[in-house]
Amino acid sequence: MFRESIYHRPKDNYAYACTNDRLHIRIRTKKNDIVQVKLVYGDPYEWIHENWVQHEKDMFKRGSDDLFDYWQVEISPPYRRIRYGFLLDDGTDRLFFGEKGFFDKIIDDPASYFCFPFLNPADVFRAPEWVKNTVWYQIFPERFANGNRDNDPENTLPWGSQEPSPDNFFGGDLEGVIQKLNYLQELGVNGIYFTPIFKAFSNHKYDTIDYMEIDPQFGDKDTLHRLIEACHERGIRVMLDAVFNHSGYYFQPFQDVLKNGEQSRYKDWFHIREFPLRLQPKPNYDTFAFVHTMPKLNTENPEVKEYLLEVGRYWVREFDIDGWRLDVANEVDHAFWREFRKAVKSIKPELYILGEIWHDSMPWLRGDQFDAVMNYPFTTNILNLYARGNLTPKQFVEQMNTILFMYPDQINQVLFNLVGSHDTPRILSECNGDVRKVKQIFTFLLTFIGTPCIYYGDEIGMTGREDPGCRKCMEWNRDQQNRDLFHHIQHLIALRNNYPLLGNEGELTFIQPAHDDENWIAFVKKREGDQALVVLNPSDHVTDFQLPDEFCTSPLTNLITGKQMRHHNTKIRLNPFESFILK
Amino acid sequence: MFRESIYHRPKDNYAYACTNDRLHIRIRTKKNDIVQVKLVYGDPYEWIHENWVQHEKDMFKRGSDDLFDYWQVEISPPYRRIRYGFLLDDGTDRLFFGEKGFFDKIIDDPASYFCFPFLNPADVFRAPEWVKNTVWYQIFPERFANGNRDNDPENTLPWGSQEPSPDNFFGGDLEGVIQKLNYLQELGVNGIYFTPIFKAFSNHKYDTIDYMEIDPQFGDKDTLHRLIEACHERGIRVMLDAVFNHSGYYFQPFQDVLKNGEQSRYKDWFHIREFPLRLQPKPNYDTFAFVHTMPKLNTENPEVKEYLLEVGRYWVREFDIDGWRLDVANEVDHAFWREFRKAVKSIKPELYILGEIWHDSMPWLRGDQFDAVMNYPFTTNILNLYARGNLTPKQFVEQMNTILFMYPDQINQVLFNLVGSHDTPRILSECNGDVRKVKQIFTFLLTFIGTPCIYYGDEIGMTGREDPGCRKCMEWNRDQQNRDLFHHIQHLIALRNNYPLLGNEGELTFIQPAHDDENWIAFVKKREGDQALVVLNPSDHVTDFQLPDEFCTSPLTNLITGKQMRHHNTKIRLNPFESFILK
Repeated sequence: MFRESIYHRPKDNYAYACTNDRLHIRIRTKKNDIVQVKLVYGDPYEWIHENWVQHEKDMFKRGSDDLFDYWQVEISPPYRRIRYGFLLDDGTDRLFFGEKGFFDKIIDDPASYFCFPFLNPADVFRAPEWVKNTVWYQIFPERFANGNRDNDPENTLPWGSQEPSPDNFFGGDLEGVIQKLNYLQELGVNGIYFTPIFKAFSNHKYDTIDYMEIDPQFGDKDTLHRLIEACHERGIRVMLDAVFNHSGYYFQPFQDVLKNGEQSRYKDWFHIREFPLRLQPKPNYDTFAFVHTMPKLNTENPEVKEYLLEVGRYWVREFDIDGWRLDVANEVDHAFWREFRKAVKSIKPELYILGEIWHDSMPWLRGDQFDAVMNYPFTTNILNLYARGNLTPKQFVEQMNTILFMYPDQINQVLFNLVGSHDTPRILSECNGDVRKVKQIFTFLLTFIGTPCIYYGDEIGMTGREDPGCRKCMEWNRDQQNRDLFHHIQHLIALRNNYPLLGNEGELTFIQPAHDDENWIAFVKKREGDQALVVLNPSDHVTDFQLPDEFCTSPLTNLITGKQMRHHNTKIRLNPFESFILK
Repeated sequence: MFRESIYHRPKDNYAYACTNDRLHIRIRTKKNDIVQVKLVYGDPYEWIHENWVQHEKDMFKRGSDDLFDYWQVEISPPYRRIRYGFLLDDGTDRLFFGEKGFFDKIIDDPASYFCFPFLNPADVFRAPEWVKNTVWYQIFPERFANGNRDNDPENTLPWGSQEPSPDNFFGGDLEGVIQKLNYLQELGVNGIYFTPIFKAFSNHKYDTIDYMEIDPQFGDKDTLHRLIEACHERGIRVMLDAVFNHSGYYFQPFQDVLKNGEQSRYKDWFHIREFPLRLQPKPNYDTFAFVHTMPKLNTENPEVKEYLLEVGRYWVREFDIDGWRLDVANEVDHAFWREFRKAVKSIKPELYILGEIWHDSMPWLRGDQFDAVMNYPFTTNILNLYARGNLTPKQFVEQMNTILFMYPDQINQVLFNLVGSHDTPRILSECNGDVRKVKQIFTFLLTFIGTPCIYYGDEIGMTGREDPGCRKCMEWNRDQQNRDLFHHIQHLIALRNNYPLLGNEGELTFIQPAHDDENWIAFVKKREGDQALVVLNPSDHVTDFQLPDEFCTSPLTNLITGKQMRHHNTKIRLNPFESFILK
C-alpha cells in the first residue's frame, strides 16, 4: 500500500458539513492502489462498558485524476460530532489510518482518530439557493448596447465602426441593457453580471473615480433603479463589480495624496513606500500589477474599510442588487472580506458574493468570506482540450476531477463557470472559428454542475482575441449573428431549466476513459429515480461509445435533437464534435 | 520520483507569512526520495519583454517523520506577492511541480504556479510577544493553597487529609495563591493558568453557575484584583479559564428552562431537542459529552453570544487578565470564536487566547481565532516514549517532527506545551515513580520551543492517577517535597531565561537517529552566531552520542551541571536517563 500517497486532513474539502446534520468525508489515495475504503467512526463520548462504540460505512470512489482516486461518504452523526478513521484495503494489506498515522488494525482509542468536533450550523458553508438555478450573462456595459445617445462621452464612435482599443468609446449604457432585456429573456438567462458601472476614467471602468456614482456615460441612479426593477420583474438577478483592491488614479483621495504628499490626510489610504510619489517606471506605491493608475487601497485602514463597506452596503440597500463580484479578490486581506460578508449579508442574506480568483481558492471559501469564485481552472481545462489541443479526453476528465475534488460539493454547485470573459480571448476565437467546438463547449458548460456564465456575444458567435479584442460592440444585426449557435444555447438553457437533473440537482460522475485514444467525454447526472447521460465527441473522428448498463434497459431520447434512439442500443456512434444528452 | 507523495497547498502550514515581509514555503516529499528541492518563484506581474522573471532558491530539509521529509525556505518578495513552484530532483529525474501538476521542465506561464496573492499584514498570524518568553504554572484553585479559612465551603476536609474525590472539598482559594507567590517566583515561572474560578457547583468549577462572579469558596472580586496586581508586580501573567461550550446545571437560564420548559424565555439558549427535558439515560438536549449537568450553550443565539462576549470582555477590562483559556474550544462554532477574538483583543491586543483542543488544530489557528492550543499531541508523544515505552527514540523524534510541521513556525513558538494537567494522570505516576524520567522530561519541555507549562505539584514530585487522582492537595511540607526535582526545574527555568536560545529565540532541528536501537534524543537550537545542543539518554543503558562537527571545535559546557567537558571531545557518553545541555 502506498501509504505516503494517502491524504486526509479534516475540514476544507476533506471533511465538511453539507447541511446542519450531514457530513461528507473524503480521502485521496494513489490511483488504482486501494480497492476498498471503509469509514470507521463513532461519537467521541459513546462508550458501552469499557468499549468505544464504533460504526463502519463503505466509502465509494467518486472519481480519479491522473495521480489519485477520490473516495467519499456521507454520514449523519446523531450527536453532531464524530471521531473517524479509514480502513484501507489494497487487496493484500489492510491498514487503519487516523490522525496518529497508520496501524495494522482498527484501534480503540478515539484520540488517535481524526476529529470533526461539532457540526455547528453557523459554520456550514451556505450560498444563496437561487445561485444554483441561475444562468448568467456577462455584460461589459460600454459595448453591449447604446440606449441613450445623450449620455455618450465625447468622441463616441459609431457602434461597431472600429476595432476596440484600450481607449476608444462606443457609447454602450444601462438604458441599452434595459432595451435589450427581451433579448436576454429570449436567450433564457436569469442573471446578469455587469463589469464596473461606477464613475471611472477608462472604458472598462476598473479605475474607479467615485464608488458612489454611476458613470455618467452609463446613465444615472434612476437608470440603474429602472434597470434592476425591470430585471427583477423578469426574474433576472443583477450582480455588480466591486473593485476594492485598488482605486483609479482620479479617485479623489489619491489625487489628494498626489497633490499634498505626506501632508495629505489620505496618505494612509494607500500603500505608499516613500514620498514624493513616483509613477514610472515602477510606482513607489503598491498598485494592481505595476499599473500606476490603479493604486492599491489600504483595506486595513479603518477609514478605508468603513468607506468600502458602506459602498458594499449602499448598492445592496438602495438598489437591491443580488450579487457582488469582487475584483482581484485574492490580493485583499481575508480580514476585510470577513467584515464585508457580514456587512452586506446583514442587509440581504441571499446576496451572492463572488470572488475573482483564478487559482485554488479554498482559503476564501470556508463560509466566512465568499460564496464562490470565478472558476478559471475549469476554463483552462476546456481551452486545453478544445483550443490548445494539448489534452486527451482522458486527461481532460482527470483534470476536471482534480478541480471537482478541490472543493466541497456545495461549493461546486455555485462556482461561477465560464468559458471566457472580458479578460480572455473569446471562445470562438480560441477555437479558431470552429463553431462545432463552441457548440459542444456550451453543451458541456450548461449540463455541468456550477452556475454557468455566457460572455455577451459568445452566444451569437462573436470573435476577438485578448483584451481589447474581446470587447467588441455587441452585434445586433441578426444577419451577422450566428443564429444557429444562439438557438443551440437557448435550447440548452431551456433544457437545464426543464430538467433540474442537468443542473445542480443531479450528482455528477464522469465515466473515465481507460486510454488516451478514446475520443469521448461522458458523465452521468443522477438524482433520486432519475438519470441522464451526457456524451461528447470532442474530436474530428467518428467515435463509438459503449453505454453503461443502466442506460441500456429503456429507450433513450437525445434531448439536444429531441430524437429517440433506437431501442436496445448498447453503443452509440458520434460524429465529429457531436454531443448527446440522453435521458 | 514518488509524485503521489508530494504535498503542497498554499496557506496554513505550507505557505504562510511569518512577518509583514517574510514568507515561509514548505513542501512534503516521500522520505529519502528527493535529494534537492528548489523554489522557483517570481512576481506575478513582472515581465521583461515577453519573459516572466523567475528566481530560484534552494529549500532545505528541516526534518523527517516516519513517512515524509519536510523542506522549507524563507523568502521576502519585494512586492509582497508571488507565484511559485518547486523543482524536485530525486537524483535521476527532475520535475517541476505547480498548482497545475507536474511538468518535465520549469514552465513559463505563472498561472500554472502556486499563488500567494498578497502578503497583507492583517492576515499575518501574530500571538502576543510575551507568550514566547513565558513559563506557565497551572493551578487547580481548590487544591493549591487555603489562604482564608473563612470562605471554606461546608464540609471542607483538613488539607490533604484524604484522597481527592469527584465531590470533596479542601478549601483552596485565591488568597492561598497570593500567599504562595513567593514560592512561584522562587521556582521561576512567570505565568499562571487557573482552571475555572467562577461561581460553580463542583470542586473543578467547570459547571458554571454565574460567569460574572468569583466562586465564594475562592474569594471575591477584591481578592482577584489583589491577586492579579500582586502577580503583575512580580512579572507574572494571569490566564483564566472560559467555559463557553456549556454551562452548569445550576446556571440560572438552564434552571429556567428546566422549570418553564417550552415557555422559558431561555429555551433557545441551549440545544433542546424536545420538551419536556429528559436528563437520563442520555439527555434529550446537547451537552458536553453526555453529562446532563453540562448543557451545551447555543453560541449562535445572539443573546447568548452577547452575554458570553461580555463575559470575555468583562474580566479583561475590569481585572486586566492576560489570557483566556477556552474550554472544549473545538465544539463551539468558529464564527463565535472570530467574534470573541475581536471583542477581547479590542480591549487588550496582547491578550493570549488559548484553545483546549487535543487534536490537529490548524482550522482554529489561521489568525482569526486562537493564538494557540494546548499541545496534547506533544504530551502523547512524551508519554509514549517515557511512560508507555512504545516508541524508540527514533520514532519519538519522527513523531515530534510530524507535530512541528503541522503548524507554521510562529505558532509552534506559542503552543502551550504540557506534560500533564487536571485532565491527565500526573507525569510522575505515568512514569511509575521514576524521577529520572521526570527530570529528563522537564529538560526536554524546558529547552523545546513553545510555551511550557508545569502542572502544580509536578515540580515537587506529586503523584496521582487520572481525575480525581491528579487533583490532590498541594504538598507544602518541604520534607515531603522532592526538593531535588524542584531545584532541577528551577535551574532549567533559569537557563531558559538566561539563554534565549534555549527558548523560542533558537531555531530547533532534531538530529535524527538512523536506527531504532540508538538510545539518544538530540536537537540543536540555533540563532545568529549562537548554538546549543540538547542530548538526552531516555533509556536504562549507557549510550554514546557522536557530537556533530560544529560542536567539536571549541570546549563545551553542560549547562545542567555547569561542568566543562573535556577538550576535543567528539563523542559523549550518557548514563541512563542522563541529559546534557551543551553550549
